[in-house]
Amino acid sequence: MRLLIIGSGGTIGNYVTQHFESQHEVVRATRSAGDVQIDINDERSIRAGLEKVGTVDAIVVAAGEAHWDSLERMSEEDFYIGIKSKLMGQVNVVRHGLQHLSLGGSITLTTGILADDPVVMTTSAAMVNGALHSFVKAVNLELSDGKRVNVVCPGLVEPSAEKYADYFPGHDPVSMKRVVNGYAKSVLGKGSGEIIRVY
Amino acid sequence: MRLLIIGSGGTIGNYVTQHFESQHEVVRATRSAGDVQIDINDERSIRAGLEKVGTVDAIVVAAGEAHWDSLERMSEEDFYIGIKSKLMGQVNVVRHGLQHLSLGGSITLTTGILADDPVVMTTSAAMVNGALHSFVKAVNLELSDGKRVNVVCPGLVEPSAEKYADYFPGHDPVSMKRVVNGYAKSVLGKGSGEIIRVY
Repeated sequence: MRLLIIGSGGTIGNYVTQHFESQHEVVRATRSAGDVQIDINDERSIRAGLEKVGTVDAIVVAAGEAHWDSLERMSEEDFYIGIKSKLMGQVNVVRHGLQHLSLGGSITLTTGILADDPVVMTTSAAMVNGALHSFVKAVNLELSDGKRVNVVCPGLVEPSAEKYADYFPGHDPVSMKRVVNGYAKSVLGKGSGEIIRVY
Repeated sequence: MRLLIIGSGGTIGNYVTQHFESQHEVVRATRSAGDVQIDINDERSIRAGLEKVGTVDAIVVAAGEAHWDSLERMSEEDFYIGIKSKLMGQVNVVRHGLQHLSLGGSITLTTGILADDPVVMTTSAAMVNGALHSFVKAVNLELSDGKRVNVVCPGLVEPSAEKYADYFPGHDPVSMKRVVNGYAKSVLGKGSGEIIRVY
């Protein structure tokens, strides 16, 4: 299987890359390094990167950011950071990536527990994650050729647990093994339109 | 009770206005008519309208649009129609409206069944609705002075059922009486952070 992993340099992307590259061909994409450069904030960069990569059996996106701050301090522009990056970046990968998938190929997006169970200062991050959950359900109604789109929604991951503990009171960190299993389920399984919650 | 209803001229806004004005003081806001003009697409218009209205006990938003089309035909700009209007329009009403609420006052947003149960051609509309559900949950963690924010999520409403029947196969239309009850629950009840599903 040939996979494109967008955001291969991040915490999750790195684990997912390591998992798949033992048995599959992985094309790594990051903003400025990797086998191909893709800036998730820029539709043209996404299209150009996908063109360069050609046909793949799976695309995994583990990239995109959102601005964290109290609602009181968030400006409209601050909300657009997450909208342009984590939300429309992943939407654009689906829009253009579907054309680069082999029959039965899959796209796997990444959200997080904040969609269902937000914490303080995450009005934007929660919003973007919830948006992607409903988007994936709607996309699933329009897929053809056995192509599949899912989203993995991890809880607070163990490698970040200490750093973010104060922001996530009472959250049980999830192991990267469980998170990687979420991506394996999406890529190697047959499901589509699924929100694969790992928490 | 003094209520501001943004989108009082729409199908839902009109019913909600009629319901509340029998017992309460209702300030009607539409884009170009009503007691005050508010263009939900424009943060400055929202702020100016709220300034003009002053303090209210409740704000209801039943305004905002999203572009319907197949994912294949949707451009990035088409997605931004819903993001700027139904999504950020309502987010901006919350951001600025909280400062115009009396103690214990409420803001009630409007989404729809597509967040949970989309139909074909609603990748954008579903996304925007899902975004608002998670946004309201996150906002609820940062409220003070007993202020409350909820969202009413109606199914296909009876007045639109015939027109949209082909787009919503098998959906059971919901009566406007039930939908209006959702707004009454939010405005007159004590709940906050609730997604009031009416379907």
